[in-house]
Amino acid sequence: MKILLTGFEPFAGEKLNPSWEAVRRIGNEKIEGLEIETLRLPTVFGRAIEVAIQVIGRFDPDIVICIGQAGGRSEIGIERVAINVNDAGIKDNEGNQPVDEPIAKGGPTAYWSTLPIKSLVRAIREEGIPAGVSNSAGTYVCNNIMYGILNYLAGEGINSRAGLIHIPFLPEQAINYPGKSSMSLETIISGLKAAIKTAAKMEEDENPPDGKIH
Amino acid sequence: MKILLTGFEPFAGEKLNPSWEAVRRIGNEKIEGLEIETLRLPTVFGRAIEVAIQVIGRFDPDIVICIGQAGGRSEIGIERVAINVNDAGIKDNEGNQPVDEPIAKGGPTAYWSTLPIKSLVRAIREEGIPAGVSNSAGTYVCNNIMYGILNYLAGEGINSRAGLIHIPFLPEQAINYPGKSSMSLETIISGLKAAIKTAAKMEEDENPPDGKIH
Amino acid sequence: MKILLTGFEPFAGEKLNPSWEAVRRIGNEKIEGLEIETLRLPTVFGRAIEVAIQVIGRFDPDIVICIGQAGGRSEIGIERVAINVNDAGIKDNEGNQPVDEPIAKGGPTAYWSTLPIKSLVRAIREEGIPAGVSNSAGTYVCNNIMYGILNYLAGEGINSRAGLIHIPFLPEQAINYPGKSSMSLETIISGLKAAIKTAAKMEEDENPPDGKIH
Amino acid sequence: MKILLTGFEPFAGEKLNPSWEAVRRIGNEKIEGLEIETLRLPTVFGRAIEVAIQVIGRFDPDIVICIGQAGGRSEIGIERVAINVNDAGIKDNEGNQPVDEPIAKGGPTAYWSTLPIKSLVRAIREEGIPAGVSNSAGTYVCNNIMYGILNYLAGEGINSRAGLIHIPFLPEQAINYPGKSSMSLETIISGLKAAIKTAAKMEEDENPPDGKIH
Repeated sequence: MKILLTGFEPFAGEKLNPSWEAVRRIGNEKIEGLEIETLRLPTVFGRAIEVAIQVIGRFDPDIVICIGQAGGRSEIGIERVAINVNDAGIKDNEGNQPVDEPIAKGGPTAYWSTLPIKSLVRAIREEGIPAGVSNSAGTYVCNNIMYGILNYLAGEGINSRAGLIHIPFLPEQAINYPGKSSMSLETIISGLKAAIKTAAKMEEDENPPDGKIH
Repeated sequence: MKILLTGFEPFAGEKLNPSWEAVRRIGNEKIEGLEIETLRLPTVFGRAIEVAIQVIGRFDPDIVICIGQAGGRSEIGIERVAINVNDAGIKDNEGNQPVDEPIAKGGPTAYWSTLPIKSLVRAIREEGIPAGVSNSAGTYVCNNIMYGILNYLAGEGINSRAGLIHIPFLPEQAINYPGKSSMSLETIISGLKAAIKTAAKMEEDENPPDGKIH
Repeated sequence: MKILLTGFEPFAGEKLNPSWEAVRRIGNEKIEGLEIETLRLPTVFGRAIEVAIQVIGRFDPDIVICIGQAGGRSEIGIERVAINVNDAGIKDNEGNQPVDEPIAKGGPTAYWSTLPIKSLVRAIREEGIPAGVSNSAGTYVCNNIMYGILNYLAGEGINSRAGLIHIPFLPEQAINYPGKSSMSLETIISGLKAAIKTAAKMEEDENPPDGKIH
Repeated sequence: MKILLTGFEPFAGEKLNPSWEAVRRIGNEKIEGLEIETLRLPTVFGRAIEVAIQVIGRFDPDIVICIGQAGGRSEIGIERVAINVNDAGIKDNEGNQPVDEPIAKGGPTAYWSTLPIKSLVRAIREEGIPAGVSNSAGTYVCNNIMYGILNYLAGEGINSRAGLIHIPFLPEQAINYPGKSSMSLETIISGLKAAIKTAAKMEEDENPPDGKIH
């Protein structure tokens, strides 16, 4: 079972991005039975998709799980759906700030996550970690990568599953955002590992792809 | 210019629903140049869509604007997108609590609002009232009616525009939810009237339907 | 029954202060049986107290009710207690930013509001408006004026009652603070008038000053 | 240097109280140069004070640091002041629910924490952990113990310092409070240890007790 795990580089003036901090630590551990490749994506509209597609082409993962920072949230959010629009409140890391532009011209309005999102939520909660389904991945680079990968896989007829998980600020980031929630890196990593194992197990069990997966 | 304005009956144990309180008051006023019909929808999955479709068939509106309560929000939210799923945290008014069921089997994953959402936000803010684009209408009856109407219009090839606006609790409701935001009925009505006029004006100006409307 | 009602001038770059907007409108109305004097205080540590004391000396009110803005709160907050410290996160309108300085050297650590705070909360809620007791008036100019007036009245042995009520942002202010709550001026005024009438009524009924008043 | 560290037993239907979980783990470690005694207090008005006073009498600590749970907060809060009132929104663990009753009849309205609260905040933040001064310890058992201990020390003329630190929910608790913040036990413990060391160091340096300590 091959899993591609992606995180993002820091953006919006932050010195780190908890998504990459978590992903690279998980990559350094071993999870039995899983071959995990990690990838640090640029926080840049479109470019992140290109980089991811290249690695998908080479690595041919069974599952792609993208991790992104959602500063201010209090729980790990398993995204249900990605929508075909870039609408940026702030510039990305190359200075782009698209407003109401489609990610893929002529593409469908939205894609469901093909991860078993409710099972992932349950698995994370069983670890004693707050988690929930989220119905919006926003319209910034996180939604961009989720839509982009799902659109690529659909277009190529590739059966691999893919989706996005949003994580809170780290405590050291939240110091600068009074009143905002945070989650420790250890807690985030425990939650993500529970999610990864659950996604892999369900894939192995040949959970029918036309089942109730959103 | 004919406009159908819908609100919902109370649900979740509330004694009133601010969406219907606002809609019926707007219906009792005159807005110059507009023929407004109001409709009180049952807070019931599917049934709300059926009732709305009947009135759309008879009244043939140019624009359909659905209003719904989003308890806890602090601003008027113009919804960008409706998704093809019913996933209810609580029962509707007939006791249904669907989990991860499609609204329309085989229907597209999502529909964009066909209202000029950014212009609506601007118009409401110019009245001094907090408003913003929202990227999720949830997965309860509000998302259900938005998806259902947009799916019906698309299926029938009807050119009318449609979308959903979420409004906060009224102050008298928020008394029972400490810490939750509210907005006075007068403020909500002023905001909605600004939105209605803007939507009507842009339609009249033949704002190209293929323009940047999300 | 004579009531002194104070509001503050705008601060922190705001163009208006809802406390003064409400107070001056209430002053322009008549409330039967009450002689209301209104006062616009400078948002300046210490100076606000001096200005208030001058007017108290001349007007000799039975009750002093100070109104202040507490941006971000969702309800009207009847303050229970004022503490003997100035600790400013931002500069006041004359550029002062005291840190951990006593308001009155050698003064008591705190004063209870001498308004019937629970009755005020009840009266506002009966109008259908969110309200609650607040256990902290902060450490900025609002707490400063509340402590200063209570300390003056105690020092002079004056029996007049006094306290502070915090009110939310107006909607037009909240536009610039996404996610923050607001309350319409009409709602605020209705709430404050209910509070004023209740305070006056209880004073008239000779509510024993040693009763449960906090 | 002797330090008494108190936590509370669970209340409000919770199965654990993060304050005691943190305190007992810190008690099991060694902090160089410090003799730490830990104490699990009943979440009962008045009784908690009695139990604490007994141990203070026997152990004669230089510093008393009480830890309490403040569910929903996102940061560690160093309390500035305790007020002379019990006003309970829910029952304590022996079924008491006092409303607006003084903790000590004839006692002062409030006591300042005698811990160096700003230094504690700084020390915790330097560990990368969100912390801030809080201006209200509420009116439940946490405020009760803080006031009670400070009142006892003042009455007996004991020079020991004392104060209260509020901590967030643990992640496993926050699962049941959607949208509420949490903090991992490891993060809480790191923060509290930084606070304890700082309080002890400043005491050892004979930080003048009449200095700016609030």
